[in-house]
Order: sequence, then C-alpha cells, then structure tokens
Amino acid sequence: MSQDQTTDGTMKSCWQKISSVPCSTSAPMRQTFSNKMSPPEILEKWSEGKTPSFNLDAMNSLLDHDNHEMREKFRNFMSDPCMTPRYNISLAEERDIALQRLQRICDAGFISVTDFWHNPLRIFAAHEIAAIIDPAMATKMTVQFNLFGGTIVMLGTKRHHDKLIEGIDNLHDIGCFGLTELGYGNNAVEMETTAEYDKATQEFIINTPSTLAQKYWITNGAIHAKHIIVFAQLSVDGQHHGIHGLLVRIRDDDMNVMPGVTVEDMGHKIGVNGVDNAKLAFDHVRVPRENLLNKYSDVAEDGTFSTSIKSNRGRFLTVADQLLSGRICIASMAIGCAKACLTISMRYAATRMTVGPQGKSDMSILQYQLQQRALMPFMARTIAMNLALDYVKDEWAKRPDDKTGHLNVVTLCCVMKALIGWHVVEMAAVCRERCGGQGYLSVNRFGTFIGSSHASVTAEGDNSVLMQKVAKERLNLFNPEKLEPVPEDLSDPAYLHFLVQTREIAQFSELGVKLMKGGMDKIFDTWMLQESDLVQNAARSYGERLISERMKHAIDSDDTEASLKPILSKLYHLYLIDTVQRDLGWFAANEVLSTAAAKKVNDVAAEACRALSPDALDLCKSFKLSDEMLSAPIARDWVDFNVGDNQGELSKL
Amino acid sequence: MSQDQTTDGTMKSCWQKISSVPCSTSAPMRQTFSNKMSPPEILEKWSEGKTPSFNLDAMNSLLDHDNHEMREKFRNFMSDPCMTPRYNISLAEERDIALQRLQRICDAGFISVTDFWHNPLRIFAAHEIAAIIDPAMATKMTVQFNLFGGTIVMLGTKRHHDKLIEGIDNLHDIGCFGLTELGYGNNAVEMETTAEYDKATQEFIINTPSTLAQKYWITNGAIHAKHIIVFAQLSVDGQHHGIHGLLVRIRDDDMNVMPGVTVEDMGHKIGVNGVDNAKLAFDHVRVPRENLLNKYSDVAEDGTFSTSIKSNRGRFLTVADQLLSGRICIASMAIGCAKACLTISMRYAATRMTVGPQGKSDMSILQYQLQQRALMPFMARTIAMNLALDYVKDEWAKRPDDKTGHLNVVTLCCVMKALIGWHVVEMAAVCRERCGGQGYLSVNRFGTFIGSSHASVTAEGDNSVLMQKVAKERLNLFNPEKLEPVPEDLSDPAYLHFLVQTREIAQFSELGVKLMKGGMDKIFDTWMLQESDLVQNAARSYGERLISERMKHAIDSDDTEASLKPILSKLYHLYLIDTVQRDLGWFAANEVLSTAAAKKVNDVAAEACRALSPDALDLCKSFKLSDEMLSAPIARDWVDFNVGDNQGELSKL
Repeated sequence: MSQDQTTDGTMKSCWQKISSVPCSTSAPMRQTFSNKMSPPEILEKWSEGKTPSFNLDAMNSLLDHDNHEMREKFRNFMSDPCMTPRYNISLAEERDIALQRLQRICDAGFISVTDFWHNPLRIFAAHEIAAIIDPAMATKMTVQFNLFGGTIVMLGTKRHHDKLIEGIDNLHDIGCFGLTELGYGNNAVEMETTAEYDKATQEFIINTPSTLAQKYWITNGAIHAKHIIVFAQLSVDGQHHGIHGLLVRIRDDDMNVMPGVTVEDMGHKIGVNGVDNAKLAFDHVRVPRENLLNKYSDVAEDGTFSTSIKSNRGRFLTVADQLLSGRICIASMAIGCAKACLTISMRYAATRMTVGPQGKSDMSILQYQLQQRALMPFMARTIAMNLALDYVKDEWAKRPDDKTGHLNVVTLCCVMKALIGWHVVEMAAVCRERCGGQGYLSVNRFGTFIGSSHASVTAEGDNSVLMQKVAKERLNLFNPEKLEPVPEDLSDPAYLHFLVQTREIAQFSELGVKLMKGGMDKIFDTWMLQESDLVQNAARSYGERLISERMKHAIDSDDTEASLKPILSKLYHLYLIDTVQRDLGWFAANEVLSTAAAKKVNDVAAEACRALSPDALDLCKSFKLSDEMLSAPIARDWVDFNVGDNQGELSKL
Repeated sequence: MSQDQTTDGTMKSCWQKISSVPCSTSAPMRQTFSNKMSPPEILEKWSEGKTPSFNLDAMNSLLDHDNHEMREKFRNFMSDPCMTPRYNISLAEERDIALQRLQRICDAGFISVTDFWHNPLRIFAAHEIAAIIDPAMATKMTVQFNLFGGTIVMLGTKRHHDKLIEGIDNLHDIGCFGLTELGYGNNAVEMETTAEYDKATQEFIINTPSTLAQKYWITNGAIHAKHIIVFAQLSVDGQHHGIHGLLVRIRDDDMNVMPGVTVEDMGHKIGVNGVDNAKLAFDHVRVPRENLLNKYSDVAEDGTFSTSIKSNRGRFLTVADQLLSGRICIASMAIGCAKACLTISMRYAATRMTVGPQGKSDMSILQYQLQQRALMPFMARTIAMNLALDYVKDEWAKRPDDKTGHLNVVTLCCVMKALIGWHVVEMAAVCRERCGGQGYLSVNRFGTFIGSSHASVTAEGDNSVLMQKVAKERLNLFNPEKLEPVPEDLSDPAYLHFLVQTREIAQFSELGVKLMKGGMDKIFDTWMLQESDLVQNAARSYGERLISERMKHAIDSDDTEASLKPILSKLYHLYLIDTVQRDLGWFAANEVLSTAAAKKVNDVAAEACRALSPDALDLCKSFKLSDEMLSAPIARDWVDFNVGDNQGELSKL
C-alpha cells in the first residue's frame, strides 16, 4: 500500500521540465517548505509574521453559542490522557472504557438530566464535546440522559423522578429506551410487544410475542443497564389504548438479568463499539401498575384508562417526543466530529510535504488546489451548519405548544439532523482519502468518524425517512413569499441566496402540483413510488435555504463581533456557491441560472476555496480542540510519532 | 438507535388516509407480502411464476470473462466454513486467520506466480473471488503474488527464480514490496533509502538514513514475511544510478528478525486488519551482490554498472512496473466486493418489510422508489465497469512494447483502478445506509467493504494522482475524431454515448488550450494550482466514455448470447443516463444538452431504475456468489438468525 499518493513518480513527471514562476495566488499559499522541518516547525512557518484575519476567541464564542464556561472546562476535562482512544482491544474492554469515561464525566457533573428543566442547551453542549474524543461514549450518554433520562423526566411523574433522577445522573441507574423492534424499525406504531393490565394483581404483563418483536439495537442493554422503558401496545380488558412507555427492571443491583427477561448481545458493529447494544425479549414479565409513565395517560387500580391526549397516534408521538431532542443530540455530536475531522485534515495537509515545482518535496499538500477544493467547502459547510443548528436548539428550547410552532420545530430538528449527518458521512470519507495512507490508520481517527457518522444517519430516524417527513410538513406549511429578483452575480451572496430560495419554492410548488394531479387516492403511489427524488430534493432545498439564512443572520447581526464579518462572509459565499454547484444541473436545466453563469460556477467556487485557504488553520484554531482531544498523530508531530515502536497506538495504557 | 427507518411512524402518517390503487409499475413490483413470511419465502414469492428475462449462466460467463472452470471451483472452495468472517477478535488472531486462509488457497493451487507467464488473467480472477469473503487475505495475496512475487518474476533472473518461485507459491517464502517511505508516499523517486556497493566484499549496504525514510505500510512485514524487495537509491563509488530493487532477508527460517533490520508493527487500521503492515528500517544491512534484481541493470563484481534502460527515470518506471498489474488486482478485488455489496443489499431490500399503502408492514423496501433510485444505478455501473475491466485485463496481457501502446495500457489500468475504487467507496456507504441498522452490524459485511474500498482508492496510487497521470497521458495522445451528431433522445444510448464523447473532447480541448495559454514555464501552476478540477474531470470523462464503449461492444458483439442483449441494453441505458445526470450541470451549462432535455433527465433515470428493478435479484444470482461467500445474515434468513444468542457472529469457530 502506498502512503498517500502514487508511488511511481506520476506527479513529478508532470512538470519535470519546468521552473516555476509564482502566480497570483495569495502569498502565504506560495511559501516553500522543506521536509527537513518538523511538522510543528512547518505549522509555525505557516503562521509566521501573519496575524489571524479575525478574533479567534470571538469566533469560538460565536460557534460555541452557549454554556461557554462549561464548554471550556469540559474541553479541558476531556483532554485528560484517560480519554485517549485505544484501538486493538476487545469489545468487552471497549465497552468498559466507554462506561468508565462516562462515569468520570458524570462524577464531575458535566451533564444532568435535570438540565432539561434548567439549561437544556447544556446537554447538547456536552454531546458535542464528548463525541469529539469518543462517539461511542457519547452514544451511551445520549441514551442515558436524553432517551432514557429525558423520557423519565418528561413522561414520568413525581414517583418516577424521586426514584430515578439521582441514579440517572450518577449512573447508578443506567437505562435503555425500548422503542425499536426487529421487525418494526420502520413502522414503530405497528410494534408487537404488549403490556396487558392484570386487574387482579394491579400489574402490567409485558410480553414479546415473536422474533420480529424483539426490542432491537437497545443501547446500554447488553451489559450496563438496570432499567428499560419498554414501549408496548397497552391494553386493559382486551381494549387497546395504543403505545405507552413502562419502566421495566432488566437487571438487579448485582447485575443479574431478571427472570423472564432475555438479553442477547448484538456484538460487533462497524463503529461505536463501546456501545453495548442488545436484543431484548420479555416472557410475560410483570411490573407494578405504577411503572407506567403516566404524565399523559394512566390506568387506575380498577383498570380505568384515562388520558389527556385523545388519539392513539397523538399519544404515540408524545411518548416518542424525546426523539426530537435526540436528533439535536445526534446533530451536535456530528458537528463535534466534523470540527475534529477538519482540524486533523488541515493540520496534516499543512505539514505533509509533496512535490513542488522543482520535483522536490517542498510544498504543503494544503497548497495544492486539489486539496483546497476537497477541504474548503467542508469548512464553510461545517460552520454554516453549526450556526443553523444553534438556531434549532434555541427554537426547540422554546417548546412552542401551538401546532404550527411545534411542527416547525419538528422539521427543523429532522432536517438538520439529516443534513449534518450526511455532511459528516461525506466529509469523513473524503478527508480520510485526502489524508492518504495516514488517514487509514485507526490512530488518526477517520475510522471513528466514518463509523459514528454512519450511525448518525440511521439512528433516531433514517435520514431519508426524516426528509420525507420534512417535505410533508413543509408542504403543509407552504405559503411562498414573492421573491424580489436579485441581479445575476455569482460573487454576491444575496444573488446566490435568491437562487436557493427560488429552488425551494419551485420544488415545493412542483411537488404540490404533482400530488394534486395524482389525486388523494394515489397519494401513496405519488409520494413513495413516483416522486421520491422530488420529495428528497425539496426537503434538502428547504434545509439549505435555512442554513443560508442563519449564516446571513450571523453576518448581519449586531451581536457579531466586527472582525468576524469578513471571514464569515467568505465562508458564506463559499457555502452558497458550493451549494449551487452541487445542484448545478437543476439550476441550469430550469433556467434559473443562465448558461453563461452556470459555466462560471466552478471557477467562482475554486476561487472561493483559494481565498479561504490562508484562513483555514486559524479557523481550526478557533474550534479550540486540544491536541489531546484530537488525539490523531497527524494533527501533531507525526514524524516524531514515527520514531520508535508504538504498535499504532497513541496510548500505552 | 433505530433499526433502519424512523421510529416515530413518519412514513405511515403520509398516507394513513389512503387506499392504494395499483399504478403503472411493472407487476412484480406491486405484489403484497407479509412479515409473517420468512425471508426465504418472500424471496420465493418474488420469483414466483416468473422466469428470468435472460440466461443466468450466460450472464455469469460474460461477467466472469476468463478461467471459468477455475472460478467455479474457487467459489466452491471459498464457500467452506473456515472462510466465514469473524469480528470480535484481536489483530493477532485476524492476521493469523488471514494467513491460514491464504495458505489453504495456495495449497489447493488456485494461484501461482508462474501464472504471470502462462495465464496472467487467472491471478486477477483469484483476487476478485478471494476479496469477496476476505479482502484482507486478498491484500496479503496481492503483495505476495503480484508485488513481491511478480517483481521477482519480472525483474529477477534465473538465480532469483530458482531460489524463490516455489516458496512464493507455497508461502514458504513470504515477501514484501518495499517501495513507499514515510516521507515519500507521494514522491517515491526522491526516496532516501540507499544501496551502496562495497567492492571489497561484493555486497550492497542497505541503509535507512532518517525517520522519513522508513519503509512504510509494508504488507506482510509486521509478522509473516522473510523477504523484502527494498527499493533504494543505488550507488557505486559515489555515482548515483537511480532506484533499483534488491532482495533483503528480514527474518530467518525461525522467523527471528535479522540483525540490522528494525520492524515495527503499524497496528490497527480502519479496514483489512488481517494485513500485517510494518514500518521497516535498515541499519547498514549487507546483502550479496547477487541480490540485485538484475534483469535490466546489473553491477559487476568490480562495480561496473550496466543497464539496458538509459535514464534513471526510465529505470524507476520499470522497477515499479508491477504496480500496473497491481492496479488491476485492486480493481478486480473491488469488483468482487461490489458484487457482494449489491447482492446483500438487494436480497435484504427484497425481504425487509416496510409500510404499505394501508400502513401495514407488507411491502418490500425494494418496491420503494427511494431504494430503487439508490441501488439500481450501482447495479448498472458495476456491470459496465466489470466489462471495461475485462478489456483492460486483455489489453494489459498483450504487453505492448511500443511507447504509445504501453502508455495506453498505463492509462487504462490507472483510470479503471480509480473509477472502480471510488465507485465501491460510494456504493458501500450508500448500501450500508439503505440497509439501515442491519447494515451497521459487522456481520452484515458493509464495514468490511467500506474498509477495503478506502484501501483501494489509496493503495498503489492515490486515485486523484492517478487521474492526473491519466489526464496527462491522454492529453499527449489527444487527437479527437470528428463526432457525427446524434439526434437528441434521452432514451437512446447512442445519443447518450455521443454526449459522453462530446464532454471528453471538450474537456481535453479546454485543458490543452489552458496549458498552452499558461505557457510551458507555468505548466506546474496551471496543472496543480489552477486547473485541478478540469484535470480530474477530463480524466473521469475519458474513463466513463471508455466504460460506455465496452458496454456497447458487449451488446453489439456476436459472441454475446442473444438472451443477454435486452438486459444489457437496459443496464447500458441506465449507466449512461446516470452518468449524464451526475454531471448534468456541465452538460446543461455547456449547452451540449438542451434545457428541455436536461429537465427530463431525472425522470428518464428514475424510469430506467424502475424498469431494471424486476431483474435485480436475477442479476445478483448471475454473479453466482454462494450464501457462504456473502456470509451476511441479511442476505439469508435474517429472522432465523435473530432467534437465539449469536453475539453478532455467524461463526462460532
């Protein structure tokens, strides 16, 4: 295997005859380096005599958005050597380590389920930072604190809170969220697990009637949990009341599995192997009546069912409400991984020497246009998405209780979870590739990000299915404003934003017309069998317009420090031109963009990448990720790492 | 984590009011299933009363291309339970297993380095089939038989052959290919390792002067190899003769590391962990003069250097020649993985129930347009690439010795290695995602394919760098034919092929003009700093045109069985329309395609996917991959797999 480029001198042969003359590229991108310099020396030369074009602290503060002091402390805490990733270890060890790390975080009080009442954004902040160094541990965290803990807080009542909140926070009471079943990952309302009320004993009987009804993928279930919230079809006296959540004990205090409960380990996964996922089945397991999470529905001693939510479907959406904040948790984790991925890639690209004009290894790969074109759009997109996600957090935290307001939050959470997840899947793969062979070593962390990004596009809603939901709800709310045309100018973000708005309106209009033409009795066919691409595209266009708006808002806002505005404008322009280029076929085919302009898009995008490149390392600095959190040798002195035997690990613990 | 779709009933809500009326879709795609049926029963219902639209054996024979009997036998051999992948195991075990499996294959005589003389295509066939079940083992195979063994055969002379060929074939003499150095993965001709001739003792002294000069990524080096071909800067009496290959012993027969040799294990990687990669350094290690691989260059006892190749650069390309067949090996492995990936995805999609028009779980996911749009273009592309790769194998096997003929083979090998590698990176990720949570379990194999595909885009030439080489050589050979315009008709492959040809000619013309305008003294800047996108795009356009031509050739050929022509035509059309859609912005912006036609491309592509879907399972059958080779539970009776405790493994060995 060759390390990161071809091994047969290809690149050299392209210009061996040539003496180079500097071109118009911005000066710092034309320095000459040497592979006799160490990576830290090379990084120093990059910033030599150059002050950042913006205030790094102010940028950090903008991107961090909330809980600044906690974030600063948590980053320091996560830089402890005990958090250093390890690779050649067994599943059992990996899970142990993930739990130990989570325990440390909980002991230090960086997250509490009661934050849902007092400071919900602190929960998201904890997820973002934890995922940078250990996405598996962060996944255990999100199930314990959001899905399990959050559901106890939100759907339980005092009796559940009194019993569990302390144990949730200190991990004495680790829990699971038992929604998905093997056969019903895509149709949870049809799940088979039952909870039948037995008046005689005032108990519910929880039962798993088939293989397809096993609770599946249950995080924390294989080893660490004592509790599960089982979602089940509730019935009393043969009368069906829809899906409800019930607290079931799966292990006693000595961690023995309870009678009637079967736990099977799901084993090795393509990522986040610190997470202990299980298949769970219940053989007529009895739990007290009080274990029903009864904030909205209850069963009295005599079996009388009462509820404040009329329809079964409405109750189902309520019991699954924690999936909404769960999607913000996942998106926050993904943003953390994106920043790490970018920082590792940029630092390596800056310190990795490649063939310069004379055939010597004296240029940084970061000086190559190939590398800039691959990495810079990811930088712009990551920062734009970060700002949009911050807005989603704020909107979610308002918890609007009108239907439109609530649906708006639902679409915001779904679209950002989906777009950020896909972004990191793409980015982790491309960054891995652009770091060549070094990117292939586990210790350099791209495997971790590839693995966790794949989890994020599937967990808590398959991205494409979420996008269907987004399209449906946005179509219901669809009431397009009349756009003021903006003169064609690819260098003008206002024009590019106008393009993005135009596309969204056109696609939702087209979707609406097609649904009407198909007629109500064919709506399933139209949606699922004929217009799937349009459904997905419309939802994406909505999300991309939203991101653009939030970026624009940050630039226009008086709260944004003045030094940030030029760099944010550069990023904004690159985000937009890249967005247009990715869908250039649509813009050109629909004559929204003239062919003359369409032809220029690539050059404008390439120039935007070139213009951003001198700021790339400073932008990474503004993320304030310590060397220890990044952990990757290629983000540090990777030549030194290669002195001596390390067995491919950074830690010898 | 939800299993594969959203968990909150999203999809159901879209059509809960609706009773479905079958639309115009082809009949088999509108059957109703039930999740009370087992996956095998569902698969049976898919093919019930329907004979395949083509002869499966004939399709298999076409795609297999050569060595039919050996392939059939080898597939059976690889279906043995000892080949079943294992997951929760240590690096040491994984490497042991990979070696044991390779040993079995060698013992059974499925590959021999002497095939390079008698039947070179047999080597590629072995790679394709071995990689389906164990890409790590296939990687060890490719280094032993192609890079190490092939170089011994091709650059060595009788003395090397007599000593090593038997041991290469029976693995008594496992070897490494020591080209890449830590600091010179992208600029091998500048490598630092030296081989200095000592007249007094008639030995070469091999030395590693710096950390950056470590031989890096050396497959088989960490544990299993006894030999390495070290590539080094050869000098005699202070005179430099360029890079040559020398045979160096790194372990004795008891597997003790030889004096002066340092071997360090590179540890855990994001894939192919059965491969034992090492960093190697040499401290003035002495080897006899006869260890120089001396087919083209030699050093006489008195130090006289003789060579049949004049330039240092020419010699470098000759010593690295085995990278060319290496790229075909890697592309063959990737094609094997692609077929496995597709088969697993299609079978699961067919047997996985999802929400039907009535909200019940009674449709196959394969019936959803979303799934068809994701998977069908991969099927078309895989088969088209398979046929193009077969052509490359044939052309390579002719070993043309004129310069143009040789360069043509070089570009063919480079472009197909790159395009197939990228194809599988993309496909493995998308198939993983479209198989939802099940796709995330290691036992379902997508992790393996993601890992091996990432290796394939970096190993033996970073894909983007190979594409630079392709663009450069194609530009040198550029002599465009005048195209006959074909009337605009998106349903006509001839028209779509014309589009693809037009793009290639336009991009190479543009590249040529830009290089001329930049001038010779700025050619480095133009190529590396300004026109990187155009360079990459032109090379890709060449490759896609080539693939199209080979597919057309298969359809037109009298050798192709008549029953295959309709299905090949469907596949060809989908390959082409998908290729145009992926670059629609270019076609529309350059007015090669009218905006009216550009607007219709998505509908035509979607219809092509729909039309192909009823054949998808039969196409998978024609690959003739046994259940055991696929190994994935979701390609078999995955409900049964979920009965009982399996710890996420298929094998309990």
